Amino acid sequence: MDIKYSVGIMSGTSLDGIDVALVKIKDSGINTKLDVVGFETIPFEEDLREEIKRSLSIEKSNVELICSLNFKLGYAFSNAVKVACNNFNFDLSKIDFIGSHGQTVYHIPKDTKELKKSTLQIGEPSIIAYEIGCQVVSNFRSMDMAAGGEGAPLVPFTEYILYRSSKNRVLQNIGGIGNATIIPQKCKLNDVFAFDTGPGNMIIDEVVYRLTGMPYDKGGQLSLKGKIIEPMLKDLMEHEYILRCPPKSTGREVFGSQFVDKILKQYSSECKEDIICTVTMFTAKSIEYNYRNFIMPRMKIDEVIIGGGGSYNKTLLNMIRECMPECKVLTQEDLGFSSDSKEAIAFAILANETLHGSFSNVLTATGAKEYVILGNITPTPKKFN
Amino acid sequence: MDIKYSVGIMSGTSLDGIDVALVKIKDSGINTKLDVVGFETIPFEEDLREEIKRSLSIEKSNVELICSLNFKLGYAFSNAVKVACNNFNFDLSKIDFIGSHGQTVYHIPKDTKELKKSTLQIGEPSIIAYEIGCQVVSNFRSMDMAAGGEGAPLVPFTEYILYRSSKNRVLQNIGGIGNATIIPQKCKLNDVFAFDTGPGNMIIDEVVYRLTGMPYDKGGQLSLKGKIIEPMLKDLMEHEYILRCPPKSTGREVFGSQFVDKILKQYSSECKEDIICTVTMFTAKSIEYNYRNFIMPRMKIDEVIIGGGGSYNKTLLNMIRECMPECKVLTQEDLGFSSDSKEAIAFAILANETLHGSFSNVLTATGAKEYVILGNITPTPKKFN
Repeated sequence: MDIKYSVGIMSGTSLDGIDVALVKIKDSGINTKLDVVGFETIPFEEDLREEIKRSLSIEKSNVELICSLNFKLGYAFSNAVKVACNNFNFDLSKIDFIGSHGQTVYHIPKDTKELKKSTLQIGEPSIIAYEIGCQVVSNFRSMDMAAGGEGAPLVPFTEYILYRSSKNRVLQNIGGIGNATIIPQKCKLNDVFAFDTGPGNMIIDEVVYRLTGMPYDKGGQLSLKGKIIEPMLKDLMEHEYILRCPPKSTGREVFGSQFVDKILKQYSSECKEDIICTVTMFTAKSIEYNYRNFIMPRMKIDEVIIGGGGSYNKTLLNMIRECMPECKVLTQEDLGFSSDSKEAIAFAILANETLHGSFSNVLTATGAKEYVILGNITPTPKKFN
Repeated sequence: MDIKYSVGIMSGTSLDGIDVALVKIKDSGINTKLDVVGFETIPFEEDLREEIKRSLSIEKSNVELICSLNFKLGYAFSNAVKVACNNFNFDLSKIDFIGSHGQTVYHIPKDTKELKKSTLQIGEPSIIAYEIGCQVVSNFRSMDMAAGGEGAPLVPFTEYILYRSSKNRVLQNIGGIGNATIIPQKCKLNDVFAFDTGPGNMIIDEVVYRLTGMPYDKGGQLSLKGKIIEPMLKDLMEHEYILRCPPKSTGREVFGSQFVDKILKQYSSECKEDIICTVTMFTAKSIEYNYRNFIMPRMKIDEVIIGGGGSYNKTLLNMIRECMPECKVLTQEDLGFSSDSKEAIAFAILANETLHGSFSNVLTATGAKEYVILGNITPTPKKFN
């Protein structure tokens, strides 16, 4: 079986930057052999970050912005791959394929009277394929939605491949949104399940930015100085999404800036650190609530492995430990993995499955009716002249 | 070489409905053998048509609408294929592949200070692939833009394959927009050139709708009753787009409802039929201007072959004949083809090229720097369970 070089590109709801993972990959499915060659996050230029934020807003977005931004992000992703591969000292022409998640700008998990269940990831794959000169797999979420799923989460497949073990594990990613993948000991793919637990860093980051001008609560130092505002926490914990049974998925349209507008208005008399502390505890408690109600009735949890930017927030990590003293709470780094690179690596693996003609959705995670091949393939735009 | 059944789906800027062509196709490139098995236009439901119109407007569109509409159109296209194949008495499971143009909702032909050169066609291919159960090629325009082209027009490739002859021919399509493909006698692909001449029916239809409530000027009967408002025609003919040298492409953002707002305001005192007559002559004269300035200096035109909805507007056809008495002006039907089905057939042919790993952009038409494989391939979402 040939060894291929693949690049995974991820740009999450937290809008930190573009994650680029270069991996060496062999075979597919449960036989996948993976080596991470390099990983780098290329920050968004401020103008582009602001444009993405506008594109997420119903009030500020329009068709012209989305048309243009789709291509701009294609160039930004291409550029990120060029910069990263240069830093890895790796020749672009050796890349066999790219898996690009794209930037999610909207996600409608269920049909409503006016709207169709749908999802929108942008970052034009033709631009990436042309600029880098290789085939690109992208738009992974739509086919799962076509098959009746919510199109998210998709990492459970790669987590199953990388983390199955003799323990009952929960992988808790804390990006903009929090999501949990449950990998029971020695399980089959069908036994894996996953769902979004609610907010990850999204509310914390936005609150910190509005109250202090800083982009996030570095190391959890701000929340450490505050105390819990109990009525506010109680109020937050009654959010419909937290209480809802999985399968479920969510995004910025639920816990984004409009949500933060509301809570900052309601609790405007409280001190900054207390508000930051309370929304941090909300993330911890929402994770606990989901575990106690939707996981622990089925199995004992041996290990919780925290990944994503939230794993660097020590206050948040300690809050999660306090909430669930009976579980061992580890970080990806404790296991020798990297929190930052996990999702970018996932999309290199998912692209590999698509190019092998294999499915990679997990029915218990997305709620899809059947296994399907995810994504569109943009061919290498061969040079003919 | 295997015979394949392919479906081409087209939904043009005129928003009439979804064109579905079922073809039998063999081989590729200049050796392509094509038989049209069936053709049908499935009208848009009124609600969906209104939603598409909203999605075209900078003021009325937003990210939520576009996210939802992309999937809604995926279902509408799938449904159109199901209805058409049922009418053709053709089993869906025998379709080998689909080429779907999608609905263009925006097109930015050149970089501006704020905006990236880009194009946006929607109608989620994963939905079509899942609902019909075959692979889908879509998003044809982006790769040509990645290669420096305008992403339009794309029909010249298929017109070259279907219409090359011993005569100097110009194929004039009159859909929402007018476009011309020039196929000199016994030419090579490199000798074909093409560009958008300006408005097709777009202004006529919108003016007729606003002034009479009817969707278009059936057979040209309204314009036949009017006379030319000379200052208005002169004014229209000074439009920057008409005068500009090819390669060039345009769309609803230039000649859409905002354009019509302006002219109806300016000429509000004129009678309805005269306004309709004048905008009809504008389409004819803009075609003539482009021919005399950008084609005839290079070659004598033997035949002008008119296609698209505009070929059914007899007044428009007569105006074109009057403008260019030295050319033979024919319709697609005069040659045994069908105006209505031409573009849908084109996307079945273009999908076939992509699946053969062949380029299908015409550099002289789009202005691209090099030949590239167009489109993304959404694999057949095999059933695994």
